[in-house]
Amino acid sequence: MQQGQVRGGAASGAGGTGTPFEFRVEPSNEAGSRARSGTLHTPHGTLDLPCFLPVATRGALRLLDWADLEHLGFEAVLMNSYHLMLRPGTAVVAAAGGLHSFVGWDRPIVTDSGGFQAMSLGGVASDEGIRFKSVYDGSSCLLTPEDALTVQAELGVDVAVALDECPRLPASSTRVEVATRRSLEWARRSAEAFDLYGRQLLVGVVQGGTDVELRVQVAEEMADLGFGALAIGGLSVGESFEERLAVLDALADVLPADRPRYLMGVGDPLTLVEAVWRGIDLFDSVLPTRLGRHGSALGWTGRLNLRSSVLQGSEEPIDPKCGCPTCSRYSKGYLRHLLLVGEETGRRLVSVHNLHFLKEFMEAVRKAIRLGTLAELRAEVWDSWARRTFKARSARSR
Amino acid sequence: MQQGQVRGGAASGAGGTGTPFEFRVEPSNEAGSRARSGTLHTPHGTLDLPCFLPVATRGALRLLDWADLEHLGFEAVLMNSYHLMLRPGTAVVAAAGGLHSFVGWDRPIVTDSGGFQAMSLGGVASDEGIRFKSVYDGSSCLLTPEDALTVQAELGVDVAVALDECPRLPASSTRVEVATRRSLEWARRSAEAFDLYGRQLLVGVVQGGTDVELRVQVAEEMADLGFGALAIGGLSVGESFEERLAVLDALADVLPADRPRYLMGVGDPLTLVEAVWRGIDLFDSVLPTRLGRHGSALGWTGRLNLRSSVLQGSEEPIDPKCGCPTCSRYSKGYLRHLLLVGEETGRRLVSVHNLHFLKEFMEAVRKAIRLGTLAELRAEVWDSWARRTFKARSARSR
Repeated sequence: MQQGQVRGGAASGAGGTGTPFEFRVEPSNEAGSRARSGTLHTPHGTLDLPCFLPVATRGALRLLDWADLEHLGFEAVLMNSYHLMLRPGTAVVAAAGGLHSFVGWDRPIVTDSGGFQAMSLGGVASDEGIRFKSVYDGSSCLLTPEDALTVQAELGVDVAVALDECPRLPASSTRVEVATRRSLEWARRSAEAFDLYGRQLLVGVVQGGTDVELRVQVAEEMADLGFGALAIGGLSVGESFEERLAVLDALADVLPADRPRYLMGVGDPLTLVEAVWRGIDLFDSVLPTRLGRHGSALGWTGRLNLRSSVLQGSEEPIDPKCGCPTCSRYSKGYLRHLLLVGEETGRRLVSVHNLHFLKEFMEAVRKAIRLGTLAELRAEVWDSWARRTFKARSARSR
Repeated sequence: MQQGQVRGGAASGAGGTGTPFEFRVEPSNEAGSRARSGTLHTPHGTLDLPCFLPVATRGALRLLDWADLEHLGFEAVLMNSYHLMLRPGTAVVAAAGGLHSFVGWDRPIVTDSGGFQAMSLGGVASDEGIRFKSVYDGSSCLLTPEDALTVQAELGVDVAVALDECPRLPASSTRVEVATRRSLEWARRSAEAFDLYGRQLLVGVVQGGTDVELRVQVAEEMADLGFGALAIGGLSVGESFEERLAVLDALADVLPADRPRYLMGVGDPLTLVEAVWRGIDLFDSVLPTRLGRHGSALGWTGRLNLRSSVLQGSEEPIDPKCGCPTCSRYSKGYLRHLLLVGEETGRRLVSVHNLHFLKEFMEAVRKAIRLGTLAELRAEVWDSWARRTFKARSARSR
């Protein structure tokens, strides 16, 4: 068993005893696979790895509440510190005893740094940090690497992410290099503040666009900074599927095996299974809820557009084999009707199905790793998902 | 025990055996009260009377699904045949085996006739019926009294309502009289089609605006037409609270005691308790879900605006004594946050609370009738609700 206490706990910035973040993974013995399965303990509960985190951007999943998420069996969620530090504001959350208590969810919470949102919403990065105008009231804000960690410490989350700058792709190599070097420098500044937040698992983010050499170089430097986990940022932001896999291939040997590896912003089954195959442990994405709101259902046979006219009056559920609350009760014809007339209930019910599917998908992935049958599952996912989701036929040969 | 099989069953248009709509009520023996409690059996289940029906306009409650409603303990809902006959269309619903099967709810369903919506959405009434343009595709439609019943028969609902014309108040006495006479004539035509739909309880609607004499006259004529239940329409559409109570007072002696009495479109606690006091058995309203979406919580002490700045960071639930899923878990501070940032989850959670409150409120009303303590409950409701909801102080002396 490959095993290690992750660095970054109550006691020190570099492992040691007493950390609540015990991390245990067992590598697959399947030929060619770098996959691993295991657990990550946090102060609010244990994640089975590899794990997918639904996204509760502003402190709630769209259209769902925590009772739904518990019923579906999710162990942890990602929230967005950009939004929460502005509304309701860090001080309000801290005064309520932290984010778990404020939102009424006592299982693990991961937050991102806010950097991605600050940049997407018109922010400008300099070496100092990211300057942006609040989407809520237009006020001018500066988010430094130290601020980002301070906010997440005050929110009291289990897993916090260091500030980085994520260049949207395609971007010039200069643009990518500047953002990547800056992110590394911010990570260094973040690591200096590390011991202040020993009750949180701190995640450093590897940027580098599609430049594989740059990615490897940054990952090696990042590995030495003492973060409890390392993330791959800047993927699923405009690159081709081949470029995505090339980055994952290159980093598989470089990201330290004794710490959790987190691929940010990814939730499509094909990338999930390919990334797991390459040793990634943790994922988050708005995909299941966003597609649900658009009436697109996820499943083992790919995506299904529930607004399609061929489903008018269909009395079948989305998937007759699915045991989710939506498939147990509602027909595609009814869901289509609700979606077409704009009833939020329809969007809610498809979101529930999609989340259930991803939960079940990750369970199947974990089981396949343990049984040594991930290659088989991977082939199945390719058959169902490759053509519908990506123009990525050539990538299959990798 | 006052008891009767309602007219309108499988066997005949005027009572008789074999009807699935057994109706039993016991009058209160409280001084001055005409309240009654009991049950109404339908092919899909039994309603405890007096009963409040949540409204699932287009085949779903806004933001909720049937599992929520069952969990909250509701026995029946109202749906809107105007919307359903246009989308997904009567034929689609009928092909799916009827509305219960199409929407996945196997408890009683009441539909309104579509007349109120057709008129609110720009329709024009003539003796023939209501001409309107579909809100979905602008197509020209004519809804006759016969059509309205045919649609509801094809939808396969338990309780169907005859077409009427509801004048918005204030309106001229001529306008009210024309609409009222026309509604009565439509009711006659509907009653002729009655035996065709013996598996449904058919409801005739008494119009008449605030003209008490006209109301009484119409109610007497309507009582002779053989409807299984009678409804009071055209209230809660712009009249004063005093005018509303005057109509209810006048009709208390006229509406036949052996049939259910239904006050349409009413859901505020004060009108509910006053109408129950005057012998009404059945109510429907979008109020709990509409107010929930606006962030307004219902409770024993009145309405609470959850967007209020004084609730920022409040760690208390809406009502510490409330056992609903929302109050069991979520603080006012969190709900306020969700409402202010526009998260549908907040609107959903307040809707859940409001529905739970109305369920509990009607349980308290039924219990008070049985115990002979409705006057006491009525006084309580006045204390909490009168000033906040209505400028209706003078009406209390009635």
